[in-house]
Amino acid sequence: MYIGVVGDGMCPPEVAEAAEKVGAELARRGCVVVCGGLGGVMEAACRGAKQAGGLTVGILPGNDRRAANPFVDVAIVTGLGELRNGLVVKSSEAIIAVGGRYGTLSEIALALKLGRPVVGLDTWQLYREGGLDRGILVATTPRDAVEIAISLASQ
Amino acid sequence: MYIGVVGDGMCPPEVAEAAEKVGAELARRGCVVVCGGLGGVMEAACRGAKQAGGLTVGILPGNDRRAANPFVDVAIVTGLGELRNGLVVKSSEAIIAVGGRYGTLSEIALALKLGRPVVGLDTWQLYREGGLDRGILVATTPRDAVEIAISLASQ
Amino acid sequence: MYIGVVGDGMCPPEVAEAAEKVGAELARRGCVVVCGGLGGVMEAACRGAKQAGGLTVGILPGNDRRAANPFVDVAIVTGLGELRNGLVVKSSEAIIAVGGRYGTLSEIALALKLGRPVVGLDTWQLYREGGLDRGILVATTPRDAVEIAISLASQ
Amino acid sequence: MYIGVVGDGMCPPEVAEAAEKVGAELARRGCVVVCGGLGGVMEAACRGAKQAGGLTVGILPGNDRRAANPFVDVAIVTGLGELRNGLVVKSSEAIIAVGGRYGTLSEIALALKLGRPVVGLDTWQLYREGGLDRGILVATTPRDAVEIAISLASQ
Repeated sequence: MYIGVVGDGMCPPEVAEAAEKVGAELARRGCVVVCGGLGGVMEAACRGAKQAGGLTVGILPGNDRRAANPFVDVAIVTGLGELRNGLVVKSSEAIIAVGGRYGTLSEIALALKLGRPVVGLDTWQLYREGGLDRGILVATTPRDAVEIAISLASQ
Repeated sequence: MYIGVVGDGMCPPEVAEAAEKVGAELARRGCVVVCGGLGGVMEAACRGAKQAGGLTVGILPGNDRRAANPFVDVAIVTGLGELRNGLVVKSSEAIIAVGGRYGTLSEIALALKLGRPVVGLDTWQLYREGGLDRGILVATTPRDAVEIAISLASQ
Repeated sequence: MYIGVVGDGMCPPEVAEAAEKVGAELARRGCVVVCGGLGGVMEAACRGAKQAGGLTVGILPGNDRRAANPFVDVAIVTGLGELRNGLVVKSSEAIIAVGGRYGTLSEIALALKLGRPVVGLDTWQLYREGGLDRGILVATTPRDAVEIAISLASQ
Repeated sequence: MYIGVVGDGMCPPEVAEAAEKVGAELARRGCVVVCGGLGGVMEAACRGAKQAGGLTVGILPGNDRRAANPFVDVAIVTGLGELRNGLVVKSSEAIIAVGGRYGTLSEIALALKLGRPVVGLDTWQLYREGGLDRGILVATTPRDAVEIAISLASQ
């Protein structure tokens, strides 16, 4: 099962720690970790996955493979800029958003548009017409996030 | 000046009416209207622009030019699916979101990520870390939305 | 009818002259000229089209609209790099290749793959298994090229 | 080292045999095999690579992961249609073309445009201005093709 982990390329230590736990838990469950291949949340998730013996895929925005973080096993070079976010989403059966800013929001939105399950850990809250949108499933711990993502992706 | 109008492919009459007014006002100000080329808000914005003598561009998700609404002057065929949303954003100097669902949210997020001004009319509200994100500039009327978009795009 | 004109971004004067005549003839026939928006053959085709009162579309590889040549009416900003070649092809009902190098060859190949008619003026010759591939229709003059492209695109 | 193997999705047995040998030799040399993920040459190359204990990546044109051939280890879902050919090229440090038709030609052309080494086994021959273009390096055996690709990719 391929699970995407999305979040900002620069993040505070507690967000990185959560992403690392998400990556490790995904690897322990036998999932491939898909991400945007750069730093911050992406690097933390890959580091966690590698420490737990998993496989990691980084779908890079630029044209240089060397931009991948050192924990990426398979680097895909796209040259698509931010549009590569859509490939991270399409290549994932569910996504887990950890923190994140506008780039992460674009991945969340695209995943919801495409019907992929989206689990959030301290990420965006979306309101429309005065009400909370329930598209993002809120998790409270990294393990919880992985649990929800896997159970929904396999449906 | 190229201004994008983004919103859902199916929308209630009052949203279509607002989009049509946005399109007309953009045309009167000499702007090219860029959109995703399909129905709903996109069609309404194009219809308004054409009634006011403007030029409209539709960047289509599929491989068939005939999917464009009848008010599109220049249809770009991409076959990129939802990833074409990114081209609508990149080809616009500012975007105006009218209503909208997840696809629109992805365009809003990508525009904010890329530093394009985003004006919203009855669209998403975004919260992060408990606070309202101020990225989307809230307009109260179609004319207001156009006014804000043009003034920010020209900066 | 949308006809693509593809060729190198830098070209000798006689190639530019041919491209300009192609653009002018397309405009006289009421076609929209689609191209990659930059210099060389693209610019010459747009210049010809504008001199004959036509409409031109430039689908740009980069993120900056100002890279468009001055004869582009509608500039599409993609940030896709060379992958935008595929959008030039998809947005054209037939393509005319004038001279050209590897980038042009990629557009020719993609158009043939997608079943779009391809007309060549002093462009590549393709051999496979020892025999000439007949996919590219050889024209001898700009007017001839336009004639063939329009007649095949309308089938 | 990532080496792309490109060729047709349907091919005669002798072409598949060559592709399988290419895949196996690449795996023995420790290369990751990158391809379009479907049948024919792509499947044969992946099968060869897996038999030799290698790692394979398939960059799919559609939206369904299940379209990948059974020898793909890591499937990237793009929904980009034929434009995904560009990602196969960008994600490879050199490409080996085995046989092939127009889709393969588009990959060859794009690789040459981007300066990636291209090795051909019974593939296209390109002429321009009456002369053979020397961009494609001609190999006579699968082992030869791999040898050339690796030595050029590492420069």
